[in-house]
Amino acid sequence: MTAQTPTPTAALVARRHRLLAALGDAPALIVAGRPRSRNYPANTTPFRAESHFLYFVGRPIAGAALLLDRGRSTLLVEPPEPDHALWLGETPSDEAIREDTGVDEVIALDRVVDVVGGRRGELATLPSNDEAVAAWQSEATGRTIRARTGARVEGVDARLADAVIAIRLAHDEAGLAQIRAAVEVTTAAHLACSRAVRPGIRESEARAAIEAVFLAADMAPSFGTIATVRGEVLHNESHGGLVREGDLVLCDAGAETSEGWASDVTRVYPASGRFSATQRAIYDVVHAANRAAIAKIAPGVSYRDVHLEAGRTVLRGLVDLGIFRGDVDGLFERGAHTLFFPHGVGHLMGLDVHDLEDLGDRAGYAPGRSRSQRFGDAYLRLDRDLVAGMVVTIEPGFYQVPAILRDPAIVGPVEADLDRAALARFADVRGIRLEDDVLVTASGSEILTRAIPIEASAVEASMRG
Amino acid sequence: MTAQTPTPTAALVARRHRLLAALGDAPALIVAGRPRSRNYPANTTPFRAESHFLYFVGRPIAGAALLLDRGRSTLLVEPPEPDHALWLGETPSDEAIREDTGVDEVIALDRVVDVVGGRRGELATLPSNDEAVAAWQSEATGRTIRARTGARVEGVDARLADAVIAIRLAHDEAGLAQIRAAVEVTTAAHLACSRAVRPGIRESEARAAIEAVFLAADMAPSFGTIATVRGEVLHNESHGGLVREGDLVLCDAGAETSEGWASDVTRVYPASGRFSATQRAIYDVVHAANRAAIAKIAPGVSYRDVHLEAGRTVLRGLVDLGIFRGDVDGLFERGAHTLFFPHGVGHLMGLDVHDLEDLGDRAGYAPGRSRSQRFGDAYLRLDRDLVAGMVVTIEPGFYQVPAILRDPAIVGPVEADLDRAALARFADVRGIRLEDDVLVTASGSEILTRAIPIEASAVEASMRG
Repeated sequence: MTAQTPTPTAALVARRHRLLAALGDAPALIVAGRPRSRNYPANTTPFRAESHFLYFVGRPIAGAALLLDRGRSTLLVEPPEPDHALWLGETPSDEAIREDTGVDEVIALDRVVDVVGGRRGELATLPSNDEAVAAWQSEATGRTIRARTGARVEGVDARLADAVIAIRLAHDEAGLAQIRAAVEVTTAAHLACSRAVRPGIRESEARAAIEAVFLAADMAPSFGTIATVRGEVLHNESHGGLVREGDLVLCDAGAETSEGWASDVTRVYPASGRFSATQRAIYDVVHAANRAAIAKIAPGVSYRDVHLEAGRTVLRGLVDLGIFRGDVDGLFERGAHTLFFPHGVGHLMGLDVHDLEDLGDRAGYAPGRSRSQRFGDAYLRLDRDLVAGMVVTIEPGFYQVPAILRDPAIVGPVEADLDRAALARFADVRGIRLEDDVLVTASGSEILTRAIPIEASAVEASMRG
Repeated sequence: MTAQTPTPTAALVARRHRLLAALGDAPALIVAGRPRSRNYPANTTPFRAESHFLYFVGRPIAGAALLLDRGRSTLLVEPPEPDHALWLGETPSDEAIREDTGVDEVIALDRVVDVVGGRRGELATLPSNDEAVAAWQSEATGRTIRARTGARVEGVDARLADAVIAIRLAHDEAGLAQIRAAVEVTTAAHLACSRAVRPGIRESEARAAIEAVFLAADMAPSFGTIATVRGEVLHNESHGGLVREGDLVLCDAGAETSEGWASDVTRVYPASGRFSATQRAIYDVVHAANRAAIAKIAPGVSYRDVHLEAGRTVLRGLVDLGIFRGDVDGLFERGAHTLFFPHGVGHLMGLDVHDLEDLGDRAGYAPGRSRSQRFGDAYLRLDRDLVAGMVVTIEPGFYQVPAILRDPAIVGPVEADLDRAALARFADVRGIRLEDDVLVTASGSEILTRAIPIEASAVEASMRG
């Protein structure tokens, strides 16, 4: 197991220069956040710095903040507690941090008001995820900053947010190298999972197979690993279920590098090593939707169109299987696909699994665009025209969600065209999702996760192997 | 892998009855806390409810609160978001929660002010770990509750804290069953670690071996796993180091059940499978201290005396090895042991690894006792007389901490008696700690972690096996 490669200092410097140029004369403060306690203060969860800080500083320095002002980068750091060396080891010197990150200066955190001085009124910042850090931001800026809740930013903060979004939407080479490193570990993890899945295990054992590979590579899960026989619960957090003969185990998992860059992949493994005929049929429908959506990806294409292509492909497959009767276009107009594919086809991916989602639809939606009012499509997280360097996930699915299938507000418009007797034959398919991470290239796309078998036959082969 | 056994409803009812009896007519509110975001709101870390709530309710119900008033238990729960079923699955009904937890009533969280009514001024609470929950507690009580920072509680809250401490210091059978379940999984994890350690791996691979066993059992680490070749950094959080021939790998790790009950065990594994003569010599000293401390444990014994016994035993061993010259009693008076054993011998263990430490020394120190002013001994987390049903850790150690060994304020009083040339021969021992979880019984003690080999010979044998 080789050590992770840190983002080169020069790349960090270049990112800050881009933001400084965009800011002009306006000062900005970007915070790292701080470790959180599990219950009592000394027992903290592993520290995960905030993504904007990681983008511009690269290193997860707890409690730190980056001040950008008139061409200069200043890193503000908390001096270590007196007994820090005994409990947590020696901390790097300010000079070592300055060299590693390439900032112009490293100073103590409590000097922020001194160095910002009379420019506090102009100081822009993005609200921390943490209330105590937000309180510190309030002191630094002289106005009330509330901790992030996906909420709007306004005024100077909105201008900073837009500048950061413009830089972070498309990745630089250093960012892509981090994503590729995360994908490589995720590939090994999914292969380990495919070998671990068999009747008689608990879902927690599939999860363990995945996360052991992440941990061995000194990476963390980029989100709560989903490993479930109840694939119809989209973000299932439970891992207590028993895997039985005939079950499908849906595994949605991704590693994150120590600098916070993500991956995010979903595969479905048949417990017995082979799909039933009905499972295979639906798997092929979702697979076709995955490939059709990916085939559309190219610079200038609207991601909403990619989403709709996936929905239409799922629907066409369900008509072919007799689950819906009638004309695909007419059914699609009435939202028939959302009964079984009730979420968006994917999202931006980068430093967050849902990249930039801390800034809400300001990041995910191009100016002038807004969420659909229709069930299912309303969950689409990204509605922008694609540009080279973006990484998106493509993750169509098919789910039998009881709460949806019994809701007349959703099913009503297509109830007459839904053949529930035909659907009943697919009772052994609770949920299937197939998710890849895709880079938008100048000429089209590159599937970053291509080494993870998606073909049903390949999965079955790996199960037998 | 069998599923975990939940704490029986009757045990939860009995715990609440004890607290209700202690409270008399005073009302109390105990909060569960809420999930925290990693960075953007939808990506939360695994929810770990607050320990007081887990003790009295047993189930980690995010956002909930327990109201105890005049003999009645009322559980306040957040109604699920409208799309909760789609993303996170069906939530149990209020009636199902009432039956499972045995509370008298389950009502909506926002009814708290209605049901507390005119008694708000008397309502006691223990401050949440979470700022947003603390703000809700402020609303409920009509006074400002600040989020916990290990800080003091006062007034009605102090009376509630003392009642909770009196109940939680000694464990009931249900709590012990949870601890034993956590220890069982931790045993398997340490054995997996002993098999994984070898030259050429990274520390992260030792950690992965441990945590994979926790995850497979659907348990979490009860604290950040330490797996390090730099054992002298007491709470080392880094796992990037390479394990080399001749290194010792110190692994301090414990599983936690889904109800939050902890375990906490440290073993030291020689990378090559065999200790060097110097490593073995120091290992035997620490082992002797571990056993001497455990031998003292019995009801009525002061835990400080157990701590001092461990320190004295370490010191005696170092004199025998020639690292210190002179009379053990005199050296001990001058704190010679704290140069190499600079922390307390252990702590309470239960629902937290450092049980009740959210209440600070109010829990750890008996009334009238307070922290030593002396370096090393000042870190002692527990100074109470032991009672049957308490679980404590016993974890003496030996560390060569450069920051200590070059600090004249610490070394000065014994510098003349420290043989630095003799010490230099032990350069291949950076840090050794041997930690067990011990139950105080009516007649003495029971080592809960006895199935995890501590004898150097046994460890070596398992390495060869």
